[in-house]
Amino acid sequence: MKQSNYFLKTSKTFSEEDKIVSAKLLKQAGFIQESVAGRYYFLPIGHKVQQNIMRIIKEEMDAAGAQEMVSPTLHPLELWKETNRTNTTGFELMKVKDRRGSEFALGGTAEEMFVDLVRKYQLSYKDLPFQLYQFSNKFRDELRARGGLLRVREFMMKDGYSFHRNEEDFRVVYEEMKQVYTRIFKRLGLNTISVEADNGYIGGEYSHEFIVESEIGESRYFVSEDGTYAAHEDVAKFKRVPANAGEQELPFEIIEQPEWVKTMDDNVKHYKEDKSHFLKNVVYKNSVTGEIIIAVVTGDLEVNKTKLENVLRAVGQLIPAEDADLAALGTKHGYVHCWGHKGARYVGDVVLKDARNLIGGQKEDTTDSIHVNYGRDFTCEILADIAMAKPGDLSERGSVLKEGRGIEVGNTFQLGFHYTNLMKGAVYRDEDGMEKPYYMGCYGIGVGRTMAAIVEKYNDEKGILWPRSIAPFDAHLILLGTMTEDLKNEAEGLYTTLTKSGVSVLFDDRSELSAGEKFSDADLIGIPWRVVVSAKTMKEGKFEVKARNEKEAHLVNEEELLKKIKTQQ
Amino acid sequence: MKQSNYFLKTSKTFSEEDKIVSAKLLKQAGFIQESVAGRYYFLPIGHKVQQNIMRIIKEEMDAAGAQEMVSPTLHPLELWKETNRTNTTGFELMKVKDRRGSEFALGGTAEEMFVDLVRKYQLSYKDLPFQLYQFSNKFRDELRARGGLLRVREFMMKDGYSFHRNEEDFRVVYEEMKQVYTRIFKRLGLNTISVEADNGYIGGEYSHEFIVESEIGESRYFVSEDGTYAAHEDVAKFKRVPANAGEQELPFEIIEQPEWVKTMDDNVKHYKEDKSHFLKNVVYKNSVTGEIIIAVVTGDLEVNKTKLENVLRAVGQLIPAEDADLAALGTKHGYVHCWGHKGARYVGDVVLKDARNLIGGQKEDTTDSIHVNYGRDFTCEILADIAMAKPGDLSERGSVLKEGRGIEVGNTFQLGFHYTNLMKGAVYRDEDGMEKPYYMGCYGIGVGRTMAAIVEKYNDEKGILWPRSIAPFDAHLILLGTMTEDLKNEAEGLYTTLTKSGVSVLFDDRSELSAGEKFSDADLIGIPWRVVVSAKTMKEGKFEVKARNEKEAHLVNEEELLKKIKTQQ
Repeated sequence: MKQSNYFLKTSKTFSEEDKIVSAKLLKQAGFIQESVAGRYYFLPIGHKVQQNIMRIIKEEMDAAGAQEMVSPTLHPLELWKETNRTNTTGFELMKVKDRRGSEFALGGTAEEMFVDLVRKYQLSYKDLPFQLYQFSNKFRDELRARGGLLRVREFMMKDGYSFHRNEEDFRVVYEEMKQVYTRIFKRLGLNTISVEADNGYIGGEYSHEFIVESEIGESRYFVSEDGTYAAHEDVAKFKRVPANAGEQELPFEIIEQPEWVKTMDDNVKHYKEDKSHFLKNVVYKNSVTGEIIIAVVTGDLEVNKTKLENVLRAVGQLIPAEDADLAALGTKHGYVHCWGHKGARYVGDVVLKDARNLIGGQKEDTTDSIHVNYGRDFTCEILADIAMAKPGDLSERGSVLKEGRGIEVGNTFQLGFHYTNLMKGAVYRDEDGMEKPYYMGCYGIGVGRTMAAIVEKYNDEKGILWPRSIAPFDAHLILLGTMTEDLKNEAEGLYTTLTKSGVSVLFDDRSELSAGEKFSDADLIGIPWRVVVSAKTMKEGKFEVKARNEKEAHLVNEEELLKKIKTQQ
Repeated sequence: MKQSNYFLKTSKTFSEEDKIVSAKLLKQAGFIQESVAGRYYFLPIGHKVQQNIMRIIKEEMDAAGAQEMVSPTLHPLELWKETNRTNTTGFELMKVKDRRGSEFALGGTAEEMFVDLVRKYQLSYKDLPFQLYQFSNKFRDELRARGGLLRVREFMMKDGYSFHRNEEDFRVVYEEMKQVYTRIFKRLGLNTISVEADNGYIGGEYSHEFIVESEIGESRYFVSEDGTYAAHEDVAKFKRVPANAGEQELPFEIIEQPEWVKTMDDNVKHYKEDKSHFLKNVVYKNSVTGEIIIAVVTGDLEVNKTKLENVLRAVGQLIPAEDADLAALGTKHGYVHCWGHKGARYVGDVVLKDARNLIGGQKEDTTDSIHVNYGRDFTCEILADIAMAKPGDLSERGSVLKEGRGIEVGNTFQLGFHYTNLMKGAVYRDEDGMEKPYYMGCYGIGVGRTMAAIVEKYNDEKGILWPRSIAPFDAHLILLGTMTEDLKNEAEGLYTTLTKSGVSVLFDDRSELSAGEKFSDADLIGIPWRVVVSAKTMKEGKFEVKARNEKEAHLVNEEELLKKIKTQQ
């Protein structure tokens, strides 16, 4: 491709909003252009990279036996009603009505569509398992778009859906898909960690996120030092260290307390006990039902809203209670009791079971309670894991948890019978002649976000360094200096030779640009090999070649050049 | 691909609605599945064909220097407001609002998006011309979906947009694109005719439709016998044969007329003159403005609503007037006058200019007018070409027009300055330093409709016959009879050999199906070569091979088989 004809415009300026390196570089180097916030054009060179990423995903998916197809973008809303997903506030669904009054969802994920497709056929156990997947645009009504391709409102996603006889059958494929994903990302130049994750609006049994470590990622997770456990902060399990565990229960007492003791820190100071000895109440409101929830933990713990919502089957519905909500309970911030607020639902963390003789639980201005014991002095409607892990906590196997942060580029879900139970007729005929619901899995990769993650990893102060596997071109041929006919012919000749030998070339044949401008464009764009043709190189009968990730340029003849580009990565 | 694992389910039954052959065959053979009316899943084998069609389009577009990219699916509605396309009733635009209140159009075509993209850059005449194109899903809020992939509400479309300094520069590319399109469709097995067409909601100067001849197509067009003219019925020009042309104007008279003379046929009978001697009025109402339009033609002509709308710049807005509208004019059907209806706008066909001494123009129960002459006895606000051509009419060059019917698979538009005049800032800097609007062209291909057109052409009573260029597989390998280990190995061996030599194979390894069932599936699916492995062929050390479009099967050895499949089309 000759650059003089190519719709590729680099830019020196960038918006202050683009603090995220990948957003800044992809825009400046002319790979993407914003339409409105969170919606991007993929310009010719950016489209090439996206297609290369998709090709690698497709190769690995096909090799794993998955079959590519494509479903409509507009999903009949009735299907989403069957699975109760139209009103889940956790999922930002866009809806549209046609002029005949039919309602549609703009596909965010396509579980319903694939289940609806499969239930149109009378399949038997012999047809199982199988996996269907597609590449298609997905839509999310995000309140805030962010960071170029990292959080957008419209994006290319690979989503796959597998159908099985049972969980056992599923597990084989699920494990295989983890390998497939790891392989895909590796070919894309990314090391991923697979962490247990929340199912969120997707539903089903459990799921994993594939995360690329990055400071600017939105996914925070924990990994155990022994390498046996990795989980997203939303779901990370950890060993509790209950205060006074095993001690005898002392008599409940209400005691005097100085009025200056208000916060948890005041308490620690006053009682000379660490935070784990205190009870702590956090109040939420269910934004759908209006219900008030009091989450009870010890002072060393934070409530994990995701866990709490899952326990209550109220995904995406909890919001912090406001002053008015507390007033309605007859209390205010800092004075909530572990018991006695009528109408509120109490959910306690499992730590309460083993902790003994806690401080707090009820509080007035000048009194507090001590030797408070769960079961004896108060109980909760539910006792469950509702607390957030933190660095230094122990995994259930006793290994120290370390914190990580990264970009979620893919995910896999064990959907189980979730959708096929809700959607009537999603059954196959089993060997025993009975109709049984499919057991399902689902597997997603965000293509644009993967592209951003690659740029986050492969860049320097001058621009992008595309891994060879997905680079838009193999070589950037640059013609320098006064463009004599001879020099032009020399460059054209090399362009033809390279192209014919299977090397894809972006040929910077632009006149009126200095060497500096061409080099800085080349560095910004980040094609793996830079080849220079100039009066100087021509005189020596050679070409200057430099890898984007190396400092030194080399003078080589045509044969050496071809060998270098074709064999070196 | 082994058929036992492939998500490919043929069906013997089909809906009564599927009278259109391509709809019936694509569904029965398992290429597509309806979600809801007008929205289709492309199943794995159908997706393959669609991808093959897209690949060929891409190859030819790239070879012509066009550059593939992709724009967002949701278009900011403000852009459509800039070009006044949000309320054009001729175009079935779907709109959606996000939760922050921003409005979007679901892309039907993407002129605004590409103009908006290009105007974000400061380009100069040196950057011109260029063409950008994309493959993306398009949406149309059709009232009636029809005929499988022929008229749908969501479909894959290739749309390209070219940018030029001026019309001259544009014409070169436009002519080239006509060649490119002809070549694309030829590679897809389709002969197309390029006919002048209406611009409809797209706007701009003029356009062409690429039509594949077919009885079931929705596009009716005329071709002159001398081959110099082809035009869609909406725009087809033809020579008028004005009654009494050149005669002297006789004095206007109102004469008695028997009451039984009501229709045009009655008039012909009574006056013993052919239809061209009578005036005829057709009344329309503008559904947006409420205006009443009286179109005046001679009795041998029909009003062409598209031409009339274009003359009035009221694209998609005219509807037939109702009794109430006529009553408001003080008249009723059959009694409309060529003059005197206050408030109505009169638009006459050009034939009026040269016709003389016409009959009619005003009518009461027992009187009519004769020797009516345009200019003397009545005039219209506009005189223009507003009549529909018919078979037997002459082209402007005097060659007889014949009628044709077909499927519109592509179109090209000379947009001119239409969009760049409406969208502020869509300018480049010319050699003289002045900012000038781009001159534009646009080029579309409906991928799904092309697929349907191919099936319409390539089928027989047993099923589809895919042209090799887009066939989902090259060969359908069929294993017949009792599946002994030897036989299975023989077939597996051939499968491997074929695949390794670059032949793509669908391998029907399904057990429990009779030869008849497998053959009838193969015929239905329509892969170019059928290869049979059975106990019989194995005994002879050969394979049975048959082309889908031939009757005779041949026994050949492996070498002959490979040669046949790899060299014969």
